[in-house]
Amino acid sequence: MVTRTINSDVAVQEADPHIPHGLHPDPKKLLKQDPINMHILKRLTGQSVVSVKQFDKQLVCELCKFAALLEATEIGKSHPLDGKIVITAFFEASTRTRLSFESAVLRLDGKIISIPEGHSTGVAKGESLSDIGEMFNAYGDAVVMRHTETSAIEEIMRNLRIPLINAGNGSGEHPTQALADWFAILKWKPQLKETLKRESDKIHLGILGTPGSMRAVNSFLQMSLLFRENIKRISIVSELADPLGEELTEQLEASGLDFQITNNINEVVSDLDVIYMNSIAFLGDSYKSLDSRFKLNQQTELKDNAVVLHPLARLDELDPTLDGTHHNLYFTQAHGAVFIRQALFISLLNRFDRLPQEQIPVLHQ
Amino acid sequence: MVTRTINSDVAVQEADPHIPHGLHPDPKKLLKQDPINMHILKRLTGQSVVSVKQFDKQLVCELCKFAALLEATEIGKSHPLDGKIVITAFFEASTRTRLSFESAVLRLDGKIISIPEGHSTGVAKGESLSDIGEMFNAYGDAVVMRHTETSAIEEIMRNLRIPLINAGNGSGEHPTQALADWFAILKWKPQLKETLKRESDKIHLGILGTPGSMRAVNSFLQMSLLFRENIKRISIVSELADPLGEELTEQLEASGLDFQITNNINEVVSDLDVIYMNSIAFLGDSYKSLDSRFKLNQQTELKDNAVVLHPLARLDELDPTLDGTHHNLYFTQAHGAVFIRQALFISLLNRFDRLPQEQIPVLHQ
Amino acid sequence: MVTRTINSDVAVQEADPHIPHGLHPDPKKLLKQDPINMHILKRLTGQSVVSVKQFDKQLVCELCKFAALLEATEIGKSHPLDGKIVITAFFEASTRTRLSFESAVLRLDGKIISIPEGHSTGVAKGESLSDIGEMFNAYGDAVVMRHTETSAIEEIMRNLRIPLINAGNGSGEHPTQALADWFAILKWKPQLKETLKRESDKIHLGILGTPGSMRAVNSFLQMSLLFRENIKRISIVSELADPLGEELTEQLEASGLDFQITNNINEVVSDLDVIYMNSIAFLGDSYKSLDSRFKLNQQTELKDNAVVLHPLARLDELDPTLDGTHHNLYFTQAHGAVFIRQALFISLLNRFDRLPQEQIPVLHQ
Repeated sequence: MVTRTINSDVAVQEADPHIPHGLHPDPKKLLKQDPINMHILKRLTGQSVVSVKQFDKQLVCELCKFAALLEATEIGKSHPLDGKIVITAFFEASTRTRLSFESAVLRLDGKIISIPEGHSTGVAKGESLSDIGEMFNAYGDAVVMRHTETSAIEEIMRNLRIPLINAGNGSGEHPTQALADWFAILKWKPQLKETLKRESDKIHLGILGTPGSMRAVNSFLQMSLLFRENIKRISIVSELADPLGEELTEQLEASGLDFQITNNINEVVSDLDVIYMNSIAFLGDSYKSLDSRFKLNQQTELKDNAVVLHPLARLDELDPTLDGTHHNLYFTQAHGAVFIRQALFISLLNRFDRLPQEQIPVLHQ
Repeated sequence: MVTRTINSDVAVQEADPHIPHGLHPDPKKLLKQDPINMHILKRLTGQSVVSVKQFDKQLVCELCKFAALLEATEIGKSHPLDGKIVITAFFEASTRTRLSFESAVLRLDGKIISIPEGHSTGVAKGESLSDIGEMFNAYGDAVVMRHTETSAIEEIMRNLRIPLINAGNGSGEHPTQALADWFAILKWKPQLKETLKRESDKIHLGILGTPGSMRAVNSFLQMSLLFRENIKRISIVSELADPLGEELTEQLEASGLDFQITNNINEVVSDLDVIYMNSIAFLGDSYKSLDSRFKLNQQTELKDNAVVLHPLARLDELDPTLDGTHHNLYFTQAHGAVFIRQALFISLLNRFDRLPQEQIPVLHQ
Repeated sequence: MVTRTINSDVAVQEADPHIPHGLHPDPKKLLKQDPINMHILKRLTGQSVVSVKQFDKQLVCELCKFAALLEATEIGKSHPLDGKIVITAFFEASTRTRLSFESAVLRLDGKIISIPEGHSTGVAKGESLSDIGEMFNAYGDAVVMRHTETSAIEEIMRNLRIPLINAGNGSGEHPTQALADWFAILKWKPQLKETLKRESDKIHLGILGTPGSMRAVNSFLQMSLLFRENIKRISIVSELADPLGEELTEQLEASGLDFQITNNINEVVSDLDVIYMNSIAFLGDSYKSLDSRFKLNQQTELKDNAVVLHPLARLDELDPTLDGTHHNLYFTQAHGAVFIRQALFISLLNRFDRLPQEQIPVLHQ
């Protein structure tokens, strides 16, 4: 416990507290000799982001490069979201995700109105989400919504005319989490933006969880398919016989990617380059933690350069002893989520013109 | 579901997403040849707004004209509430109303501190509202309060010295909802500001609900009485034998207005000019929805120019098939609530001097 | 009930609504011939405030003088927290304390992201506070946390690298409440900053409550010990035989201060100069109000110049009949809490350079 007396006359120069522990690749490497293509980002103007299906590889890469620019510079000081109100409507409570979005908006000088816990609202009185959507048009300029029901996105969009970001809908999708995941991966290995020529450069991707019923894993897997030409193999580690479900199985098969399903991470872990962990199996309304065949710790025989991702919150499947190692990309992943969301808001609300002039050369006009 | 790929290079020029669906009369018509009388609005400086009884017709009209100015111009850009903090204290949760107030404040560059769900606060530990009022004097510059108890307003005002806006107190009042209602009506028919000479221009007003026990209906009815000389008749549609209660009955009788009570909307609907709908009968602590004799849909035989109001949230008494018709004034009503609340905040906090110089000529000094 | 018509054309010039009722000593007296020593305040840069044990008398006095400067001037207009985000994480709900912190930040133009009720968050899913701390590094620049568990501070600080303010941890401490308490006392009697020479000038301090199990009382008692040379005697009024516990008993004995424990306030009240009241005995998870031997009202035989403090919320132990008297220092105490917290934020985040130039001479460089 820190209870020492505050009596030093000399302020200690500490490292930047915002830099995450673990592996923290320089975001500038993502931008090297590869200016941001603004034409691609401008496709997002006025759009809603509800599914990874809306994205192609190019758009993901440009968003990640723009996020890298936001992370590497103090671009937020030019107040790009000045005068804009974002509504964070969490009809399923989630502190971290909500705060990540709100921090992103506030750092850019936007404003927030929030429903931190939607269950106790008009919805409880039977009000329809489509009516709430009509109201949101009056109250704000963009909406971030999380909801327990997969169908909630479709319902609110019936009347909504301002951009919506889906922050998780039931067992559906969580596309901005997938963007945060790939932002971390691309910072770690920027050459994945290009088409790799050498087979040995391609990655073996391990996914722990059930993509068919967990929205974050679902979105991550779908986005990974956009990078299929750089993926050697995908190994899915799950206790379920069919962790994918029909739709994802079809997508995977159509992708032509080599993939396998196993129920023990130790069978594949020593060959994995990227390990995507997850703690919670969303089975209906209940959360279920995974057993010991699905755990990582410092004893796990990881490849030397392997990196671990985890959308957090974690339970005991990912041991904190890994936090101080170079395998820990999950803290960078969580920190970077703020910047990828900033990139999205500036794009959806078309506030590129508010960026500082001296940064403009980076952007490919 | 919008899942199309975001791949168009050309951004589609969309209509202003903030314009509500349904009938949307031009707010500028309210201001035509009728400059805002600022002397009247300045009466509100430092005042609390707790009951419709505090208003006269002139004050309602000037507030609505000021709200129209705010809606028609980008007056908010001059940051009229800069440096002011508004406390939104919802001891009875209500998302829409809270967000409407918060949006109003933030658009004018004020700040918000919020109690989104008051039940879990000091009050639960037995703290008195009058002590909370004393604290609020320290924390903010104005308070918006909703409370389950009718007596809560009186209690908090014992120590409160900053302006309070009553956003609904038990079965008491909800005066800013009534202002939003009449703002919509006046935009629809600006000549109601004057005393109409022709009997045929006056309106037949239908009110669905129990004004005696529902605060929004109560406040709407009381405010309607300020416009009595332009009202031909009021028809109250309710399943209760006495939907008014003693006090409102006396007020209605004293007004000299022709009024009737019926338990079937279809008996009067074809003669109504304005139909004020409501979904919930507040009987003690429970909510009760109304049966089929109290419903509107596209089959209802409405007058051609009739408009429907609804403070929302609606249940099945107001069918969404009416949303796309010119009878739908309820979306305009909900959108306008943000501007009428802006007009109130600028008036209560006397921030007229922050309005842009070029707009000043509109204001009658 | 205020239901008069708003019809006066002349706006009444009211007293400043932010000035508390009861005794309100001029904060400027704290600054008289005693400029603020900025070297002392700069010790706080980047620090966390978790316990009164971190403070010495000089630091408390400089913070109170800085708070007095903030209260007496409009220093907040220079936006000293511009661009900074403070996270208010209330894993134990408390409206007043949260709003007090949020008001402090917003008045200085900082921004807030908030967890108003932490129970329903990732924590509920089993997420560790140390992981939440790592996330907070990404989301904000400082954290204010309240938690039901005493050990929560230690846990979140494992990964936290931005300053933390402990706003109450279980039965542990509440150091900023103690600062607010002593800010009120020092405004009331500024000479307590110095070492008093005459015995008759020293104060007899009465504390009602159980410092050993109530965090606010604990922190107040510990901070009082920093002023021991100006305290004649401490009388603790409690129904418990051992209201102090081992650690505080040792601290009190080591201080050399004359202290006594009694179970009836009336035995000592007529000799007390400062009476620190409290309403709730935190015994495990339940709250218990105190009986009649622990109550103050206008019949209590207080010394003429005695002042009463109460961290509020109060129950019936402190009668509202005292609110209008010069014994009431508790409203000043509550109001001042906003300024002492402002002083802390500016110090922890080292934003002294944002203060207006014309105020700089007050600060001892």
